[in-house]
Amino acid sequence: KMLARSVSRLLARPSTALARRALSSGAPNITLRYFDSRGRAQGIRYALKDAEVEFKDDRVSLQHIISGNWFNLKADPSISGPFGVLPVLHWDDFTIGQTEAISGYLYHKLGHAEGLSLEDSAMSGALVSCAHQDVIVMCLQVLNVVGTAPDLKEEQIGQAVQSCTVRMNGILPRLEKLVGGKDYFLKDAPVMGDFCIYDALDQCKVILGDNVLDAYPGLKAFMERMANRPNIAKYIASGERPLFLTGAPQEAQILQKIQSVPRL
Amino acid sequence: KMLARSVSRLLARPSTALARRALSSGAPNITLRYFDSRGRAQGIRYALKDAEVEFKDDRVSLQHIISGNWFNLKADPSISGPFGVLPVLHWDDFTIGQTEAISGYLYHKLGHAEGLSLEDSAMSGALVSCAHQDVIVMCLQVLNVVGTAPDLKEEQIGQAVQSCTVRMNGILPRLEKLVGGKDYFLKDAPVMGDFCIYDALDQCKVILGDNVLDAYPGLKAFMERMANRPNIAKYIASGERPLFLTGAPQEAQILQKIQSVPRL
Repeated sequence: KMLARSVSRLLARPSTALARRALSSGAPNITLRYFDSRGRAQGIRYALKDAEVEFKDDRVSLQHIISGNWFNLKADPSISGPFGVLPVLHWDDFTIGQTEAISGYLYHKLGHAEGLSLEDSAMSGALVSCAHQDVIVMCLQVLNVVGTAPDLKEEQIGQAVQSCTVRMNGILPRLEKLVGGKDYFLKDAPVMGDFCIYDALDQCKVILGDNVLDAYPGLKAFMERMANRPNIAKYIASGERPLFLTGAPQEAQILQKIQSVPRL
Repeated sequence: KMLARSVSRLLARPSTALARRALSSGAPNITLRYFDSRGRAQGIRYALKDAEVEFKDDRVSLQHIISGNWFNLKADPSISGPFGVLPVLHWDDFTIGQTEAISGYLYHKLGHAEGLSLEDSAMSGALVSCAHQDVIVMCLQVLNVVGTAPDLKEEQIGQAVQSCTVRMNGILPRLEKLVGGKDYFLKDAPVMGDFCIYDALDQCKVILGDNVLDAYPGLKAFMERMANRPNIAKYIASGERPLFLTGAPQEAQILQKIQSVPRL
């Protein structure tokens, strides 16, 4: 009966089954540690949730940043990992830091590599870098500019949004071409690159507005496909996902300010 | 005779021989494209030079940035690759962008993975990220602060240097622990993580001064060991290495300003 269930699962949900198979040596003890925000860890959370992997989503309260206590926690390698920066992944006895390295590790541990070449794996890694270092950095800069200069005039906020939109329109056509008419970037199931691009474009939409993808039908369909994956949809509906993108205490107000400004 | 030469090479220079073996399917056609600076490509250059791999070191003149013409070149995917950002690696028909992804790809193509686990590979990737996103970003920020505010007082420059030094002293003990008493971070030959940390700490020394590693004997020995590898030493002595760390036209003057300020 167990076997029959396994087989029907294998047929019904290929990527989850793959992940399960990759984990078949017994349930590993997994902790992902990051701040209580999306930032540089949300793509990793999506990948783990999508694979139905049990893990501890250990979120360091933003209070520790505001109070300055983070610097004490940061000094403790059992919290801040080998490099003193979050995110950190513990997978049984192995501990690793840095978003790209964690993603590269999970690409193998979650079975994403199956059926893919070394070149595909490099492309997944490149999408992870593009998501965090190009898209997210660029979009969070708008939050940062508006957050650190509370007296900014409406026109100046509009300019910050506009300049970010122009830069995003340098990246989006590239991503549109890479996803093409396909369901996902590299195969018939998402890999780390997909989860991170999904997260990055989602953060981008929160900041620049939903219509930022209007000219990119392939990316729009991709975003919808990702959001409708049962485990992703369930996770988002659960309210478990961090509310904030960053550690800025005034993020909600900053976003409201950005959204209230007329688009150029 | 050829065989004897190969065998003696195998014995004499294990890492080069490994790289050669990995490339044994015929010399690939390789181009690394970046700006005429060290920035986010120098670690990759060191790895290719160390392995004696033939490649075209295609350096986009900083004139294109100063004149604004880079935006025209950037729009051409045959120059700026899949993501519109440099560095870009062409390896025969395969093209990939993003420093971490290029490094991950070369880790396999140059034979670095041999004898190492998935966990080691993640650690090499994490070192690549630490090098570029923690060390280099942090150090180049000093250049940026001093470069964009030409009227900065000596005291303010001293503070920028001091604040960067404090932050570096959060990272350096971690790297010191990771390299430990070993020759290299992961095995008896350098892998991508080593080349990138070597580059990052070298850029750090240029900006913060040679004595920045004084309290870290393991890292000091590592830096010397890397600099004395025959192909690295030959490359540096050849004068082929880009003179500048960044694309800032006034970099030499900015560095001179930083170096002339008394350390706090």
